[in-house]
Amino acid sequence: MDGIHRSPKDDHGATVLSPALLNEEHVADIVERLNAVSLRTAVDVLSRLPDERAVEVLDQPELDAAAELVAALPADRAAHLLAGMSADRTAEVFRDLEEPVRSQLMQRLDLVTKSEVQQLLAYPPRTAGALMTTEFVSVPAGWTVAQTLDHIRHVERTRETVYAIYVLDPATSALVQTVTLRRLITGEPDASILTAAPPRKPVTVSGLMDQEEVARLFTKYDLLAVPVVDAADRVLGIVTVDDVIDAIVEEGTEDVQKLGGMEALDEPYMQIGFLDMIRKRAGWLCALFISEMLTASAMQHFADELEKAIVLTLFIPLIMSSGGNSGSQATSLLIRAIALREVRLRDWWRVALRELPTGIMLGSILGALGVARIAAWQLIGIYDYGPHWMLIAATVGVGLIGIVTFGSLSGSMLPFLLKRLGFDPASASAPFVATLVDVTGLVIYFSVALIFLRGTLL
Amino acid sequence: MDGIHRSPKDDHGATVLSPALLNEEHVADIVERLNAVSLRTAVDVLSRLPDERAVEVLDQPELDAAAELVAALPADRAAHLLAGMSADRTAEVFRDLEEPVRSQLMQRLDLVTKSEVQQLLAYPPRTAGALMTTEFVSVPAGWTVAQTLDHIRHVERTRETVYAIYVLDPATSALVQTVTLRRLITGEPDASILTAAPPRKPVTVSGLMDQEEVARLFTKYDLLAVPVVDAADRVLGIVTVDDVIDAIVEEGTEDVQKLGGMEALDEPYMQIGFLDMIRKRAGWLCALFISEMLTASAMQHFADELEKAIVLTLFIPLIMSSGGNSGSQATSLLIRAIALREVRLRDWWRVALRELPTGIMLGSILGALGVARIAAWQLIGIYDYGPHWMLIAATVGVGLIGIVTFGSLSGSMLPFLLKRLGFDPASASAPFVATLVDVTGLVIYFSVALIFLRGTLL
Repeated sequence: MDGIHRSPKDDHGATVLSPALLNEEHVADIVERLNAVSLRTAVDVLSRLPDERAVEVLDQPELDAAAELVAALPADRAAHLLAGMSADRTAEVFRDLEEPVRSQLMQRLDLVTKSEVQQLLAYPPRTAGALMTTEFVSVPAGWTVAQTLDHIRHVERTRETVYAIYVLDPATSALVQTVTLRRLITGEPDASILTAAPPRKPVTVSGLMDQEEVARLFTKYDLLAVPVVDAADRVLGIVTVDDVIDAIVEEGTEDVQKLGGMEALDEPYMQIGFLDMIRKRAGWLCALFISEMLTASAMQHFADELEKAIVLTLFIPLIMSSGGNSGSQATSLLIRAIALREVRLRDWWRVALRELPTGIMLGSILGALGVARIAAWQLIGIYDYGPHWMLIAATVGVGLIGIVTFGSLSGSMLPFLLKRLGFDPASASAPFVATLVDVTGLVIYFSVALIFLRGTLL
Repeated sequence: MDGIHRSPKDDHGATVLSPALLNEEHVADIVERLNAVSLRTAVDVLSRLPDERAVEVLDQPELDAAAELVAALPADRAAHLLAGMSADRTAEVFRDLEEPVRSQLMQRLDLVTKSEVQQLLAYPPRTAGALMTTEFVSVPAGWTVAQTLDHIRHVERTRETVYAIYVLDPATSALVQTVTLRRLITGEPDASILTAAPPRKPVTVSGLMDQEEVARLFTKYDLLAVPVVDAADRVLGIVTVDDVIDAIVEEGTEDVQKLGGMEALDEPYMQIGFLDMIRKRAGWLCALFISEMLTASAMQHFADELEKAIVLTLFIPLIMSSGGNSGSQATSLLIRAIALREVRLRDWWRVALRELPTGIMLGSILGALGVARIAAWQLIGIYDYGPHWMLIAATVGVGLIGIVTFGSLSGSMLPFLLKRLGFDPASASAPFVATLVDVTGLVIYFSVALIFLRGTLL
């Protein structure tokens, strides 16, 4: 078990982790401390904490290796703590628990907790159902404001949030309205709970809605919680804003890692195992490498021209990288614009119409720089590109316009294409686009060269 | 004014934007509709909405061109609506207003609103101060639970949130405690408000704290709001969770765009002007192009070798792109790990010790693929690399190990270096790393070639 030593900060921390001190600290700070010590120390600290405090600690999604901690505790205490935690967090811990501990602990749960947790575990990860908690406040539509407030006072301790109250049809249990606590406390005590409700239909989500979609609703409607409902509008649970923020941060990490040309790591960088890391990175790297082999084929195709005009090879890296760079700009712009719904799939041609002039303009700027560089080196005498240096400069300049335009266009279209085919647009990584543009870039460059240099160098 | 036509969806929307319908809809949906029609139509709709509803619409940060809308309204109505909005949003609109309208509207504001807005405008963008609102609930420490609840009932309508109540020292106005509404309603009516407070010091931020740092506190402590305090612990305002989510999404967009090798756009893709777009993209593109010119210099340096062994040029794009790809993977991993504080600046050597074996391993995998490709083409007879094809294959294989290792190492170290120098680590874009690796990659490749091919081809 010492192998799961998760940080080199080591166990000096143990001395300051006395239960007395821990009682005064914010639970998030205790979690930070526990993350920094070895699993053995963390288990030791946790087993000396009073139940209520231990539940608070385990309830934090920021606690690393919560499943390992729970598995290392005596089974009875572990089951007791798991039952005390919020249902969504308990389910999350169960997702990470390994057999046979998982089944053993599941059996020790009380029936209510067990069915709640099993219900949550049925949802695929990254859906509203997987994020939701079943600990919310609901009241029948016939209640008064005072009755509802009284109910909240009784159940407050056991609910993840009491700021949204779900008003249900007494007959069908379908959601009728959502009332906020702030409107509730300003309401007339004897009036119907519905007098405190807003005049419009409550925002709801289905259990299978993707967490990105849920996050978008939170930003759009400034929600603190959203109810997850079934086909008959019965409330299955609620997703709260803290879980949504965690989901947004997680999706951001994934997007950045995919954009870097790899699979999402799903684990903190310092904690993922060596072989897992290789696996997540080697896949894309090999795929890109094999595609990039086409550049060698393209070069072989132009081998005769290369032999006649070696000077052309000098600018291959420069020209290819410019195509890749402009493509990666366009891709990252569009990935984000699509993710934020600024641009829809059907807008692809509108984007193409923007990228075409943008690419020509950017290509012209780089082309001018390239021509200036060649002319300067030639005229100052740093390097001699031969008698036809002006034609070579023209080849580089025009080649750059073509390649940067092609890069901007294909870089912007790739995310649309991937989305259309049902993939994540964020898989259109900078390296992916660069590879795509490299092969075509070579062909463009040599074609331009054939036009400009036929009869002279070629 | 028709020039600021913001979407081609056009004004058919105007017919469904009748005030009667708009009253039933969620304000976020009205905002979505207004964003889709021309400014002229939007102004028309807004001027026909009752004040209360117009304020709600303008209060949404998702409303595009709010400043233009306000500027197009009659000045008296505009000032009235601005005064009705939440102070942080009013300040945001003022940030976007142009002179002379800005000063004209500022003068028409009532004194209280004016001083609030001017106080908020004094903070730089992207700080806690710029995100905060001054509309929060505070009570003196001497009050009882019942007094506080009564106070909240009176001010609820004019406060952005009432879920956190700030308890102040009656003498110094310093923050003593934060009480949540949920604990308040379960408290004894006649007990001191402090009995409902948690046993620990409240989390606070300073007005100049960066919004990324604020967001981190929200995720760590699962906050709904955080008070912004001055040096004497007096509460200047509060930052609420909805503004924090918007800030997280904004920072995510910036990171992706920077990683793509460009300046952050700061505006939706479809709305930014052509020249602004060129400016944001051309800067980095030119800088990268000029750095990449070093590849031409490196190639010129090896021109003699190139002439003798043209076959070497065939693999230049393949080898260079592999270095760039592995570098971009490492960079995106570390940018995110640093942003999420999984890795600190002082951990750089620990990261280097991970990336070194990772790079060697990934390089070996690609090297093996490269050798296999050359051997296959040679043996099947697709292309003839000459009598020394085995040495060429060895050059490519060993070159790849060197270049991928260098790419992984430098890609992972660049974000640290940038952070150490005071830049945003996210500026270490995939294209930036690729450029860095390209030049060195060429030198590594040719050096390996000199070792393997001296006496045969070279």
